Amino acid sequence: MERVVTEKDITIKDVAKHANVSVATVSRVLNGLDRVSESTRKRVLKVIDELNFVPNTMAASMVKKKTNMLSVVVPEIQNPFYTAVIGGTVEVAKKAGFFTLVVSTNGDEAEEAEFFESFLSKNVDGIILIGTHKEAEFYRTIRKPTVLVDRYINNSGLDGVMIDNYRGAYEATRHFLEYGHERIAIIDGAHDFNDGKDRYWGYQQAMVEFGVTPDPKYHKQGSWLEESGYRSTVELMQSEYPPTAIFAANNLICQGAIKAFRDLKLDIGEDISLIGFDENELAQFVQPRVTVVRRPTHEMGTQAAEMLIQKIKENDADQSNPKKVVLDVELMKRGSVKKLN
Amino acid sequence: MERVVTEKDITIKDVAKHANVSVATVSRVLNGLDRVSESTRKRVLKVIDELNFVPNTMAASMVKKKTNMLSVVVPEIQNPFYTAVIGGTVEVAKKAGFFTLVVSTNGDEAEEAEFFESFLSKNVDGIILIGTHKEAEFYRTIRKPTVLVDRYINNSGLDGVMIDNYRGAYEATRHFLEYGHERIAIIDGAHDFNDGKDRYWGYQQAMVEFGVTPDPKYHKQGSWLEESGYRSTVELMQSEYPPTAIFAANNLICQGAIKAFRDLKLDIGEDISLIGFDENELAQFVQPRVTVVRRPTHEMGTQAAEMLIQKIKENDADQSNPKKVVLDVELMKRGSVKKLN
Repeated sequence: MERVVTEKDITIKDVAKHANVSVATVSRVLNGLDRVSESTRKRVLKVIDELNFVPNTMAASMVKKKTNMLSVVVPEIQNPFYTAVIGGTVEVAKKAGFFTLVVSTNGDEAEEAEFFESFLSKNVDGIILIGTHKEAEFYRTIRKPTVLVDRYINNSGLDGVMIDNYRGAYEATRHFLEYGHERIAIIDGAHDFNDGKDRYWGYQQAMVEFGVTPDPKYHKQGSWLEESGYRSTVELMQSEYPPTAIFAANNLICQGAIKAFRDLKLDIGEDISLIGFDENELAQFVQPRVTVVRRPTHEMGTQAAEMLIQKIKENDADQSNPKKVVLDVELMKRGSVKKLN
Repeated sequence: MERVVTEKDITIKDVAKHANVSVATVSRVLNGLDRVSESTRKRVLKVIDELNFVPNTMAASMVKKKTNMLSVVVPEIQNPFYTAVIGGTVEVAKKAGFFTLVVSTNGDEAEEAEFFESFLSKNVDGIILIGTHKEAEFYRTIRKPTVLVDRYINNSGLDGVMIDNYRGAYEATRHFLEYGHERIAIIDGAHDFNDGKDRYWGYQQAMVEFGVTPDPKYHKQGSWLEESGYRSTVELMQSEYPPTAIFAANNLICQGAIKAFRDLKLDIGEDISLIGFDENELAQFVQPRVTVVRRPTHEMGTQAAEMLIQKIKENDADQSNPKKVVLDVELMKRGSVKKLN
């Protein structure tokens, strides 16, 4: 924000003037209607952003129409991480007198956008969002109190509850290194969001600090799903120089790795060392149990819901000074890392 | 329904007259407001039911206001069974152009009722419901197209997609008996709904058919959660005459049993035989894998969504001839049952 403007001075006409379009066009953009070219839409949104313009109707509806509904919007609901966040949100929302609607976007940007336009903009008081959109632009058009969870989008203007992905991955990798491992592999998925990027970065930094050059053949990048973790683990273990340790960068990849070790008849903590990111059912079941980076999943939901309800009560749609809360992670040392030194 | 009436002839006045109350009272009951005594409320609902009265406003809104929203209402969302049903629903709904809102009632009747009154009656076109209410009365007041899943409530007047719980439990128990087991325990939760009742009944019937009298000390009834399955298993195995076989009547109880055997250092399929109801992560992980009664969870969701969308399209709120679909279950024989004969 380069210049300071007083929000109440700004009208839709100012936006139209600055963007060099008609008022009708601004209105179409605001209502998410099509028949506006992508370049025009971008220009209008840029002006809205620069002027920090809040549409009257929306501001008014935000003041008047209370629905006592919150929505948690997640990419999918089968991963226990998401259901834990939802559980935390529902708990806090309920106590504060809000109902919670859960929406899965199937990781589809178009679906997410349509949902915001058709439903969420009217029917809920606020939103907890684990977003699917990668660009800040989408988030800046949200005119409801919204708190991002887990995935943070820079310049989105939104509050967020995150965890320190970098530190979690760093600690895990350092633990391997301190136990004498050097052939340390990482299995992860796409680096679409901060979480994936930061986990990879944490791994890389720990390696470099210990004077070990990360070897590209020990970075297996697939999807964030179990099947991908299974396949990558098998490939790593059947390669010419298998790693002595694997960092599985999420819960499902870790479960895939554990199943692969079962099928390859490799003993965890003996034949292969393993650390997962996020608690999971199998990590807690096998013996020895698997060391994981634990994050407060339920608390991410409660914390986000508290922040959101506060915003709703204060009728705060200010996006100029977003608040980011970063919760701590913890390396739960169990028996899955063999000491080589 | 004892007498045939033409719905359009019935007005709120008729209901008031038949129930011997004021029109205002009927209206209060219809809108779920309090300050109506329980006995009056029951009387009014009975008359509404007898006359097959559909309130004008609701009938009208059902015709006119399409929201293109469905809702899946479940008791909780952490159990993979529910997320599988939700997944199936979302898949079909999406193809048909509907968004799906997921609502968890936390197994709380008051919360469920409030949700129907405050939100669902207005904002969605139809509902897939795994209900928390035990009495048919609640279901008969729902004026939106609704399909019950899993738990069927007799006299609810609603369509339903169920599975054959009786047969699943019967086949599991019979498998134990055919392999020479007689000390067969069952671990289950409350018999609040048809599923729990039918599974117990299937177990009992198979025993009786094989001339084995079910022994009450082999029936451990707790909650339907993992902790309860774990505790019951430990108690059974540490009792004076431990069973040789355990039927774990849902997925979570089965996971609890598997964890208990791990901690008791008992080999499944050797020291103890086990069959679970519903697929679960641990049953597929341990070796030998655990025999389970498998039901088409995802298909329960798709089937229910198809029925619901059909009802919405036909604008069918007729509750006089509910349609029940019972899907098949399958005993997946793996290695967890020892042959004693």
